[in-house]
This record gives sequence, structure tokens and C-alpha cells, in this order.
Amino acid sequence: MLNPLLVREKITQFYIEDNQYGDLATHIFDQTQIGTLTLKSKDTGIFCGEAIINESFKLLDSTVEISLKVKDGDSIHPEDIIAHIKGPVYVLLTMERIVLNLIQRMSGIATKIRRIADKIAHTSTRLVDTRKTTPGLGIFEKFAVTVGGGFNHRRSLNDGLMLKDNHIAFSKSMDAAIENAKKVVGPMDKIEVEIENEDMLQTAISNNVDIIMFDNQKPEWIAEHISLVPEAIQTEASGNINESNIVEYAETGVDYISMGSLFYAQNALDISAKVVI
Amino acid sequence: MLNPLLVREKITQFYIEDNQYGDLATHIFDQTQIGTLTLKSKDTGIFCGEAIINESFKLLDSTVEISLKVKDGDSIHPEDIIAHIKGPVYVLLTMERIVLNLIQRMSGIATKIRRIADKIAHTSTRLVDTRKTTPGLGIFEKFAVTVGGGFNHRRSLNDGLMLKDNHIAFSKSMDAAIENAKKVVGPMDKIEVEIENEDMLQTAISNNVDIIMFDNQKPEWIAEHISLVPEAIQTEASGNINESNIVEYAETGVDYISMGSLFYAQNALDISAKVVI
Amino acid sequence: MLNPLLVREKITQFYIEDNQYGDLATHIFDQTQIGTLTLKSKDTGIFCGEAIINESFKLLDSTVEISLKVKDGDSIHPEDIIAHIKGPVYVLLTMERIVLNLIQRMSGIATKIRRIADKIAHTSTRLVDTRKTTPGLGIFEKFAVTVGGGFNHRRSLNDGLMLKDNHIAFSKSMDAAIENAKKVVGPMDKIEVEIENEDMLQTAISNNVDIIMFDNQKPEWIAEHISLVPEAIQTEASGNINESNIVEYAETGVDYISMGSLFYAQNALDISAKVVI
Amino acid sequence: MLNPLLVREKITQFYIEDNQYGDLATHIFDQTQIGTLTLKSKDTGIFCGEAIINESFKLLDSTVEISLKVKDGDSIHPEDIIAHIKGPVYVLLTMERIVLNLIQRMSGIATKIRRIADKIAHTSTRLVDTRKTTPGLGIFEKFAVTVGGGFNHRRSLNDGLMLKDNHIAFSKSMDAAIENAKKVVGPMDKIEVEIENEDMLQTAISNNVDIIMFDNQKPEWIAEHISLVPEAIQTEASGNINESNIVEYAETGVDYISMGSLFYAQNALDISAKVVI
Amino acid sequence: MLNPLLVREKITQFYIEDNQYGDLATHIFDQTQIGTLTLKSKDTGIFCGEAIINESFKLLDSTVEISLKVKDGDSIHPEDIIAHIKGPVYVLLTMERIVLNLIQRMSGIATKIRRIADKIAHTSTRLVDTRKTTPGLGIFEKFAVTVGGGFNHRRSLNDGLMLKDNHIAFSKSMDAAIENAKKVVGPMDKIEVEIENEDMLQTAISNNVDIIMFDNQKPEWIAEHISLVPEAIQTEASGNINESNIVEYAETGVDYISMGSLFYAQNALDISAKVVI
Amino acid sequence: MLNPLLVREKITQFYIEDNQYGDLATHIFDQTQIGTLTLKSKDTGIFCGEAIINESFKLLDSTVEISLKVKDGDSIHPEDIIAHIKGPVYVLLTMERIVLNLIQRMSGIATKIRRIADKIAHTSTRLVDTRKTTPGLGIFEKFAVTVGGGFNHRRSLNDGLMLKDNHIAFSKSMDAAIENAKKVVGPMDKIEVEIENEDMLQTAISNNVDIIMFDNQKPEWIAEHISLVPEAIQTEASGNINESNIVEYAETGVDYISMGSLFYAQNALDISAKVVI
Repeated sequence: MLNPLLVREKITQFYIEDNQYGDLATHIFDQTQIGTLTLKSKDTGIFCGEAIINESFKLLDSTVEISLKVKDGDSIHPEDIIAHIKGPVYVLLTMERIVLNLIQRMSGIATKIRRIADKIAHTSTRLVDTRKTTPGLGIFEKFAVTVGGGFNHRRSLNDGLMLKDNHIAFSKSMDAAIENAKKVVGPMDKIEVEIENEDMLQTAISNNVDIIMFDNQKPEWIAEHISLVPEAIQTEASGNINESNIVEYAETGVDYISMGSLFYAQNALDISAKVVI
Repeated sequence: MLNPLLVREKITQFYIEDNQYGDLATHIFDQTQIGTLTLKSKDTGIFCGEAIINESFKLLDSTVEISLKVKDGDSIHPEDIIAHIKGPVYVLLTMERIVLNLIQRMSGIATKIRRIADKIAHTSTRLVDTRKTTPGLGIFEKFAVTVGGGFNHRRSLNDGLMLKDNHIAFSKSMDAAIENAKKVVGPMDKIEVEIENEDMLQTAISNNVDIIMFDNQKPEWIAEHISLVPEAIQTEASGNINESNIVEYAETGVDYISMGSLFYAQNALDISAKVVI
Repeated sequence: MLNPLLVREKITQFYIEDNQYGDLATHIFDQTQIGTLTLKSKDTGIFCGEAIINESFKLLDSTVEISLKVKDGDSIHPEDIIAHIKGPVYVLLTMERIVLNLIQRMSGIATKIRRIADKIAHTSTRLVDTRKTTPGLGIFEKFAVTVGGGFNHRRSLNDGLMLKDNHIAFSKSMDAAIENAKKVVGPMDKIEVEIENEDMLQTAISNNVDIIMFDNQKPEWIAEHISLVPEAIQTEASGNINESNIVEYAETGVDYISMGSLFYAQNALDISAKVVI
Repeated sequence: MLNPLLVREKITQFYIEDNQYGDLATHIFDQTQIGTLTLKSKDTGIFCGEAIINESFKLLDSTVEISLKVKDGDSIHPEDIIAHIKGPVYVLLTMERIVLNLIQRMSGIATKIRRIADKIAHTSTRLVDTRKTTPGLGIFEKFAVTVGGGFNHRRSLNDGLMLKDNHIAFSKSMDAAIENAKKVVGPMDKIEVEIENEDMLQTAISNNVDIIMFDNQKPEWIAEHISLVPEAIQTEASGNINESNIVEYAETGVDYISMGSLFYAQNALDISAKVVI
Repeated sequence: MLNPLLVREKITQFYIEDNQYGDLATHIFDQTQIGTLTLKSKDTGIFCGEAIINESFKLLDSTVEISLKVKDGDSIHPEDIIAHIKGPVYVLLTMERIVLNLIQRMSGIATKIRRIADKIAHTSTRLVDTRKTTPGLGIFEKFAVTVGGGFNHRRSLNDGLMLKDNHIAFSKSMDAAIENAKKVVGPMDKIEVEIENEDMLQTAISNNVDIIMFDNQKPEWIAEHISLVPEAIQTEASGNINESNIVEYAETGVDYISMGSLFYAQNALDISAKVVI
Repeated sequence: MLNPLLVREKITQFYIEDNQYGDLATHIFDQTQIGTLTLKSKDTGIFCGEAIINESFKLLDSTVEISLKVKDGDSIHPEDIIAHIKGPVYVLLTMERIVLNLIQRMSGIATKIRRIADKIAHTSTRLVDTRKTTPGLGIFEKFAVTVGGGFNHRRSLNDGLMLKDNHIAFSKSMDAAIENAKKVVGPMDKIEVEIENEDMLQTAISNNVDIIMFDNQKPEWIAEHISLVPEAIQTEASGNINESNIVEYAETGVDYISMGSLFYAQNALDISAKVVI
């Protein structure tokens, strides 16, 4: 779940950035005028953002009343009501954009994950994200992935030791890189290594790493080589995988498939915020 | 241009979020090992991100040497070198992801803006953004819009007074809303009003607002009604405008066209970071 | 209105700066001892500071009871009660000074604005502030201006484009400066130009800027030249304007008069905080 | 002296508040254009602000060259040059206002202090400030007091234990308040007590506090009663003391005179910032 | 008492550092599952930490119910219940470690102080702390000292002027150092001087400082020389004082004994947090 | 290695907390007076703190010259010189305490770790830390552990999933807890389970967790049962392990031994800072 203290701190930061001197347009209202805002879906997908709606408006005024109609992970369709929010008009109108930005983005990610995960549901492959989150929004995006049914790869650089092409290039050899890695990891850290050809694969196997990532390999190549990997080592496929070819990858038997594009090209789910008169 | 103090503060925040305890993988290197990282384009588009590259790596170590090969606004193509960065290996490998995330995103926006702006270059219509920026990344995204050849609409809620459907709904009438708005604006503030039909258009005109936004109107409707608007009032079209239909909108003669999708569905420009051996 | 999240953040910062280890003097009380503090005017003027009183004490202890007797913009006189605050003695005594500092300052500004605005009420000239606010206190001071009946000029450097003497000096010419300015402004940005003589006035007019500021000009000079300015361009007078000569300036017909001294030489309104036994 | 880390942190905060998206007006310049700004006095007084000038511009660009012509505490007169600052035009124009706001304010305080301290230089009384500083600017204002030749009273609520009217009112008696105070003070803490009549004076003396403050007393009353105070207890006069009557107070022989109005009604010293062509 | 705003800010910082993405282990629970956590002493000592328990859990969820069974300063013994905390399981399990870390540390300090203070209770010597607090935790540790019955020496470098060996070494002479010190102190500041031999003692006395610290002196030496110090000057012993020899030091008649080891080698008091089923 | 941006941010925070208004005592020096401070060991142990010395003083003044004589992990003995620091006297004297506090603490931890690790060097057991770090100082303490030759257990709650007694108590059963845990972990996350008896051990084994922690078990019990654990599952011993009994634990063949007391009862290594005349 989302860390509530961090959610409040982030929303506070976003609000202050957007609204240092107060919204000019809300100065046309009496500060005590009360209204109701309805968040409604204009799209079909998976909702994600309960915590955003619950925490944001109340930060401004603790008397705001929230009536949530959906839960994280629920399917939503056009015209479905997501929530009614009742409170001072200035609260509704100045917080609206930040809330929409976040829940549209989070729901968009959850929707995409669910759609892709469904495609590979007949395999035992798990869909995982990457560290290519939007700077500053990682906690929201990583959470959306889990709501959609995916799994989180490294949350940060402290969250496991990953030897990528550049790490290996800077080391004398892949053997040396893995040997050094084993000297620094603690009990809860795993070592994952990117491999690009059969030599590297053999080196990774012989060094007994925790996870081997097939980086930018064709499904056929993976299918051919995966049987070389002992059961105690997990496998991951990554690079140039998209909705069209993911099934082929999943059917190779890899344990995990990661897609950086989850965060890059997401289509936000369309959600509207309209006044109830 | 980007505020350098805010750029440094944001990159510091992103780095600390990603890397509280130091990158496990870079612990395999001697902290003084020096290397060179090359940023290379893998795509065709408009580069945006000089300040990101210049400020980020040096935050960690002031001796890092940056050799930038392109400027903001330059066209880049696959295999074009964007920059060489020489410095401690741990600096290169731990800052790489944040830099890529930001410049891919910013270049993606600049590229999209340039492409669309070119389509309407035969008209006098200017392409503008919206306030639907990614929370926390507004300064980067708004800057990328200008690099691409677009213009910034409101940077924040203090940056002009905009009466949208919800503001009007919470007021007794559109007349009342505009009348109140005129009571609160200072000399540097403009008033913009969203209109959805001819009645609203007439009200906006008779109240002499600064800008009238045709919200979710067909190009034909705008073309028919724009002549009603006196020259002293600027016009903007917004809502359901995309790359396919933007030319029709621009040819109506509106002064500005805004597209919220600029920030939502952007495709990051693909840029790689590879070690030079 | 004041941004409540920013108000709370600022008061928190001020309190922590003043009181890192707790007030030594309040250690003489039992932490649960309850008392009442009465804020009383010792002066005649316009009150400003509702949000300060409402937000500050409750930050420390949410059970504090606030009974406000006046509203922002109300006239107050010696012995008028502004508020009773009931709560733990340590809350009352440690927050008192910050609250007094802010509301005395804000009420002082509102009072001065009202007094000056009244002098020019027979004209259509509006009194506006400047960007010469106290660093860190801009949101409070700008708000007090509006409570007193004045208007806000630029809230920050992003809030409109102003070409002052130094900007023009750094450009090749005033024409060039304005031409470049028009290339960077978005739809909600206005361009204002300071002029110091008739040549500059003519240049500004011919370039059709949004606002022309008569900088450090005598009222006679303005009266003579204002008819040259077309109706679509607004006018502002600034520089060496004070309570003695402001009427002369207003009677020239300028749209706005700005006074930097509003924030510089303000006299705080005297307000006391006394224990009720 | 000023804490340099805090000075930089505060200036950074002020700059970001004023300039989130970059100054629109400086977008008309090439970012690499170099210029020189000259700070010049337009007034007679005591300069205070070396650290502000030295730290601020370089925060934006470390290549800025500062040539300071005066030191903290120097007398300055109209047309005296304070400093030349050479660097990128955007640096000069966006940092100018914050620097002027701070050094005008600090120099104004130093000037006022020097003028008043000179009036009482024939006595051994020291001029001290109060805790009524501008919220957030205490470090700058307290420093300016020392530059002018005054002394700092409590810097914060942790900096000594002061029993004011409200503390005594909330205690059962002045005896009880002092007795409790003695139980909580550490070796470096002094106890000061406000007294308003002879009874209170006797109680303070018999309890052997460190400092007795004559609060809102006439000079005659103080002159009459000061001989009752043993040499080991210091004395301070406060309340309704101004430039006209301060000599009378100083001549009573009190050790300290404090004036809250030092920060409230200060007149900033007028300093200009002009481009050198 | 502890500054509640700073306590909340610090706990928020600690929580976010420990828990950016939410505790993985609490993801196994339904977010609404309610439980009770009991804090129980496993040790004998003095409890300190009411504010920590009261403020921390509620930061996450305001509905948490706290039932505190002890007060700051109470003696606790193995199996004594300190508090029951009822609320969402995720709140209990993610905040538990920070709370234990702080209250074990604070109770450990209070316990040590009480034990030592009891040993010298037959003298009039007061036990004081030093500025050698744990960076970032000063407010908690200084508070624990007072709960244990000790007194706070300087809270920060602004809290009195202390001339240590290095200050004197950098001055031309001890006379010069004290003379300069007297020029900068305000009315609430005391001057303390470290002395290491009889010459320095005589210099300190003849300069009439506020406090003389016998630094690293044997009790016999202090006992011999303390009578030279006039009554108006306070005395402090410091350096190599421990629980075994403190009585000898106290019996010399010094006013204060300070021990830096209070914060360095403290043994946290053992407190457990267990679920109630 | 330590994150340099976070090190600077933390030292800045500690310095500002200790020194808001500048050190009173350094006001006795001319701000430009230069001196040299020598850090010298007064103890025998392992040094840890290069980054602290290198980053701290230069934060105040970039011209400070640091001459480090030892590296992280070096053995130091009484009278060994650690570093000479040359720069403005005010820099040396105000930063000294923070630097000493941190490097004494870090060196104390490294020393303790090295001493204990040496005792078990004849086994293959690794010494690991716990999450019981000092709040706010985790990055320094975890780093010191690695310098001493130990390994880091979880750095934060996101760094692996650990099922402790309370997690299991709140679940219906240990089986249910592990089953749920497996549903939420990503590829880089390990699951560790605390077991307190043979039943729990069997459950953990049959659920194939990544690590089994023998919590508060006698070495004999562990020795007896460790052979039940398949090779693919790692083992850890924790609880009531100290320098006297650790060899017995290591000789059971557990993979890891963790000691919370590493951070609790550490004895800082004594290091002095003296002026060189």
C-alpha cells in the first residue's frame, strides 16, 4: 500500500507548486460556499487511486466528505461514478487537477497492466515493472502496477543488485563483476545479471546468480536456452517486448517479463470532474 | 529558461529517492574509477535537456567533464551523439537513469510539439499547452513545450484567471462569474472564459473578457462564430483536438489551440547511455 | 484567499525556527494547564489575519478553541476584541509572538491600503502593489493588499512579462526588447513596459504592448501624455508616489498606481495578547 | 556572523518562490549574454549585507564575479558604489530583487541602530533588540543589529527564560513563577523578569533573578528605583521608548534598553541596481 | 517539553526514510484489519517518551487509540505495560520500530541520569549534559536528560558563549578572548571559560566570567582551588568523570558536573512491542 | 558507498539545527582568520568517516584544504593523525562537533564489527546488522557496518519481506502469512521468516522461503536443527547473541548472524580535534 505520510507530503508539494498565492478563479466565490464534485469515468479500465482521493481534499479542509464508489482494482466503465466529494468550492476546484492527474495516470497504468497480464494468464510468467518510473512519482506508479496485477521489480537502487551492460563493461569481466557483487550483498539482496549471448549465459549460470535477465533476445533464442538454467535460478525477459509479442515471450517459460514502456507510453484513463448542481 | 536552483533541487530529490543508501551495484567498483558515458539518440526528433545533463552529474562530483554535442531545439537522429560524460563510474551509473528519464520525456514533448506546430505553420495560430502537466515535473514539461516551438498557457493557478465549466456552475450565472472575476484581477492578470454555445459566446463578448475558449466545439462551429468576436478579444480552441484534425481547427483563425494530450500520451524519445571502453 | 497548506507550512517553519527545544519559560507550567488568551486591538485600522489565527494555534493542539470576533477587512479600534483563544497555556504562549507578528504586519498593510485607496476613490484608478514584498512573506502581504482594497501586480516573475530599465539596457533597443518579448509570451501573459520619456512612450504605443508604466514621471507630464495612449493599452504610474501626491497622480486618469513603499515602510497595527484570568 | 548554510538555504527558498518557471522577461536574452550590475546607494546610512551579495548571485552561477566596495558597518552616502556584479544577464536580473530587499532592510536596521546608539554613547547603556523580528528573517535582522552596534536579546525561545506578564498571570504568583523557573534552567540560561511596580520589583530582587526588566515605566520611576537593585542583577528598560526619549532612559543607568520598533517600523535604506552599459 | 511540530516533522522524516514504498510485509494484511500492540518494559529504569507514543501512530491514522499507562519520569520494571495502541495493523507494524528506537534511547538516557543524579543527591551539585548529542536527535536527548532529573547545558551554539581550548588557542591570549567575548554577548548570554591550570583560573576570575569550567582536573585539585572562585561566578567540572568518581567531584562543591558520555555510551532501555491476540 | 547528496543534506540539517544564528564564540574572531585543526585518534580501532571529513567543512567554505591521513577501514591507534583541516577558524570551530559526533560513532561501529567478525572468521558465517539503526543516521551506520567487514540486512522496510512474530500473530497462520507474502513479492525481494520452534521451522521449510531466522534460540538447538534446512534456504541466527557467545552460534553453520546491539550500545571511538598553533 501507499505510504500515507509520503502521499500527503507529495500532494502538499504539488498543490503548493500549482497554487502558491491561491487560485485567482476561486476568489470569485465566498470561501465558505459548499458544493459537490463528482468524479466520473469516461473510459473503460481499472481504477486506481483510492488513497489519492481520500487524502488530498481533506488536507485542505478536514470537514470535506468523501463518498467513494469504487475500490482500487475495480473495473470501471464510461459514466461510472468514482466518487462524490462535498466541501468548500475552493477546495474542490483547486485540488481537482492534481487528483485527476494522479488517478488518471495510476488507473491508466493499472489498466494496461491488467490487459497485458490477462494475455499471459495461461502461463506462469509474472509481469514486472522497471525502474523507469516518472521521477518523483515512483510510489504512485509502482503501486498502480500491483493494483493491475503486476509485480514490482527494484523500487530503488538499494533494492537488489543488478549488473547491466554498463556495469559489466566497467568491470574487467563478467566473472569479476559477479565475484565483486557477491562480496557486497547482504542476506536480503539478490543479484541479477543481464546476458546478451550464450557465453554470458554460461558465465551467469556457473556463478550461480539469483536471476538471469535475457536482454533484447528473440523469444526463439530464449526458448532454446532456458533449459540450460538450473531451477534455483530465476529468469526474466526484457527489451523490445510489447503487447503484440508478449505471449511468445511468456510461452518460453521465463519467470518474469519486464516492460519499461509501462510508464513511458501510458495512456491515462479519462476521468472527469463535474459539479453537481 | 529553467530555474537552475529548482532544477538542482528536483534532481537532488529524485536522486535521493532512488538511491538512499548508494547503488548496490556500484559498490563493485573502486570509488575513484573513472569512465566515460555516451548519450546517443536512438530516434529522430528534437532534443531538449541541456540543463539536465549539465547540472545533474556535477551535483555529485564537480570534477565531472561534460561534452555536449547538441543544443536544446536541435534535430537529432539515430546514432547522433548527444553528450560524452567523463567522471567517476559511480556518478555515471547512479545518475544515468534520472537523466535519461528527464531528457527522453522532455525531448519527446519537444518533438511532438514541433511536429504539430509544423502542421499549422501556414496559419497564424499558436500551439499552447495546458495545466495538465505531470505533478512535480511542470517546470521541465513547460520548458520542453517552448523548445519545441509551442507556448505556455497558465503555468499555475496564479497565472491568470480562467473560468471553466465548474466555476460557472458554482456561480449564479456566467455574467456574475465574470463580474466577480473583474473585481479580483490585477493589472497583469487576464480573464479567460470557456464557452460551449452561442449564448455563452455572446455573454463572454458582451463582458469583454480577454480570451474566449471554444471548448469541445467542432471546427465548423468555430469557423461560423469566430467573426462575432471583436479583434481585441483573443480566441482559443480546446478539447478533442488531435494531430489529425488540428489543421481544420487552425484554419478557423483561432489565435491559440491547446492540447492536454501533449503531456498525457507523450512518447518519450529513445536515448541510450552506453559506456565507452 | 491564502493557500492553507502553505500557511501551515510557513507557520510551522517559523515556529520551529523560534522554538527548537521548546520555550524554556513554558516549562514552568504543567503541560495540561488550560488558559485563555485575548487578542485586542490597541490601534485603529483594518483587520487582516483570520487564517493566521485559525490555523496557527491548532497546528500545535487540535483541541484549541478559537472565537474570532472580526473578519478580514473589518475596521477595528482600540480595545476591540479580535479573538479569544482557549487551550493549553504552552500553546498560547509559544505561538503568540508569531501570530502577532503576522497579523500586525498584515493589518498594517491593509490599513495603509484602505487609507490610500479612499483618497483616490473619486477616480477610477486602482491601487496596486509591487514585487517588493518581504522575502518569504509574499503570500501574506499580497493577500493583505487585497483585503485593504488594493490589487496585486505580479505575484512572481512568472506572472507577466515586465520590461524595466535594466531589461531594455541589456537589449539592443526597446523595439528589440518588445519584439523578443512577444515571441515568448503565452496567451495568459501580458507585457508591461516602463517608459521614461516621450520617445519610449511612442515606441511602446507603436509596439502595442499591454501596459505602459510611467516610471518616475511628474503628474503633469503624465496628464499631458496619457491621451496619446490608445484605449486598448492600460497605463500605470509608479515611482516617488506617496500619500501626499497620490491624488494628483490618480487625477491624471492612469488605470493603476503602484507603490513599493506599501511593504517597505509599513507601520504594523498594534495588537496585544493578554491572558484572561 | 551569519550561518552561510542557512543564508544559502533561505536565498534559495526566496528565489524559487519568486521564480518557479524562470523569469519571463529574461527569456528575451541569450542565456549566455554577460553584463554588469552596479549596486549604488541612494541614501545615507550604514551598509549591511556583504554575505547576501557574496552568496546569492553565485548560487545561480559560480562564475559570477563580485567586486564589493564596502564592508558591513561602513557608512555609505548617495552615489557610493556598493558592488559591481558581473555575470550572465539572467542571473543579474532575476536575483536583483531578492538581494535588494534583504540588503535594504538590513542596512535600514543597521542605520537606525547606529543613529540611536550614538545618542546614548555617553552612557554605559547598551541598545538591544527583541524577539519581534520578521518571521523567517530573524537571522538577517539580528545580524544587522550587531552590525549597527546593538546587541541581541533572545534569539529564540530557547535562548534564556523570560517571565513576562502572561507567564506570571498563568502562575499562581510571581514568587511561584520564579521558583519554578529556577528548577528548569541550565547553567547557561538566565532568568529575566518583567516588573510593572515596586512590589514586583521587590519580589524579583528578593528572588535574585538575573535580569529585571522595567516594563512600560517612565524614566523618572526607573531613576528612582534602580538604586534598589543590587549590582549582581542587571536591568533593562522596555516599552514606549523611542528616539525622542531614549536619552532620558539611558541616563537612568539601566544596563540595557530594548526597542521592539527596531524591526517593526524600519525604513529600508534606498539602494539601486543599475546596468552598466 | 518537546516542540510538537518538530516531533511530528522528525517522525515523518524517519518514517519516510524507512518506508518509502510501504512495508512489503504489511501488504499481506487487509489495510483495514485492526489490532492492538502492547508496549511492555523488559527492563528496570525510568520511562521517557509519552510524546513519541502519542504523536507517532496518529500521524498515520487519526483514529488510532492510545492508552498510555505510564508518564515521563515514572519508574518501570520488567513486564510493566507502557501502552496499548489499537489501530490498523499496518500502522502498528510500520511505526513500531521508530517508536521503540526513540523511547528505548530516551528512557535509557533518563535512567542513566536518574541513577547518577541519585548518587550526588546529598550535594547541591547539578548534573548537566553537553552538546555531544546524536546529530538530528538533540531535542529528544536533551528532553530525556530533564526527565531523568538532569539539566541542559547549551542546546546549540547560540545558547551561550563558551571559550574552549581551541577558541583560546586561536586568540592571542585568554584575556583577549574574554575581552572580545564581552563585546559580543547580549543580555541573556553567559560566558563560560574552560580552565586547565591555576593561571587560567586566575585570569578567568579576574575577568569576571559567568562560569568557570574545570576541564579534566582531578577532584583534589578542584577542591583545593574552588575557594578562590568568588560566589558570583558559577563552577562546572567536566572531563573523565564517570559513575565511579562522580561523588568525589560533587563533594568538591562545584555547581555543575557535565558528562559527555551521557549520550555516547548510553544503554537503551529494553522495551518490547507485542501483538495482543 | 555513501550517497554524497544525502550526506551533504544531512550535514547541512545538523549544522543548521546546531547553529541557527552563528556560533557566539566564533564572533570573537575575524571572519577571515585562518587556522588548522588536527583530528587525532585517542583510541585503537577501525577508522570510518572519510566522506564526512571531505564533505562537511567544504560545505561552509570551498577553499578549505583537507589532508586525510587514513582511509575507511584503516586501523588507527592513539596519537595517529586522521586529518589536518586548514581554513577559516569559524569553519573549523563550528563544524568540528558534528564531524566528531559522526566519525566517532561510525568508527565505533566499524571497530566493533571488525572485532566480532574476526572472532568468527574461521567459519563461513557472515555478520549482519539489523534495522535498529539510529533514526535519521541509518545511512552512516549501515555504511560503517560494511567498512568494518559486516553486511547489511534490510536497509528499509522495502528491502525484503520479513515475517516477524507480530506479522504471524496478525495472520491466521504461518502458512497463510507465507502464502500471502509470495503473492506480493517481486523478483528482487526475498522472504525471511522468524521461527521459534520446530513446528515453525518445518512450516517455513515446506513453504520454501528464502531465509529462515532462528529467533532467540540456543546454539545447541540451532546445531541440532540446521541440517533439516535444505541448501537452497539460507539461515540466520538472531536474539541474545553477544561477543561472548557468538562463536558458538557461528559454529552451528548458520549463514548469517545479526546483532541489534551493534547500533544500540556502541562505544564511540575517541577522536580529538585540536588546534595547531
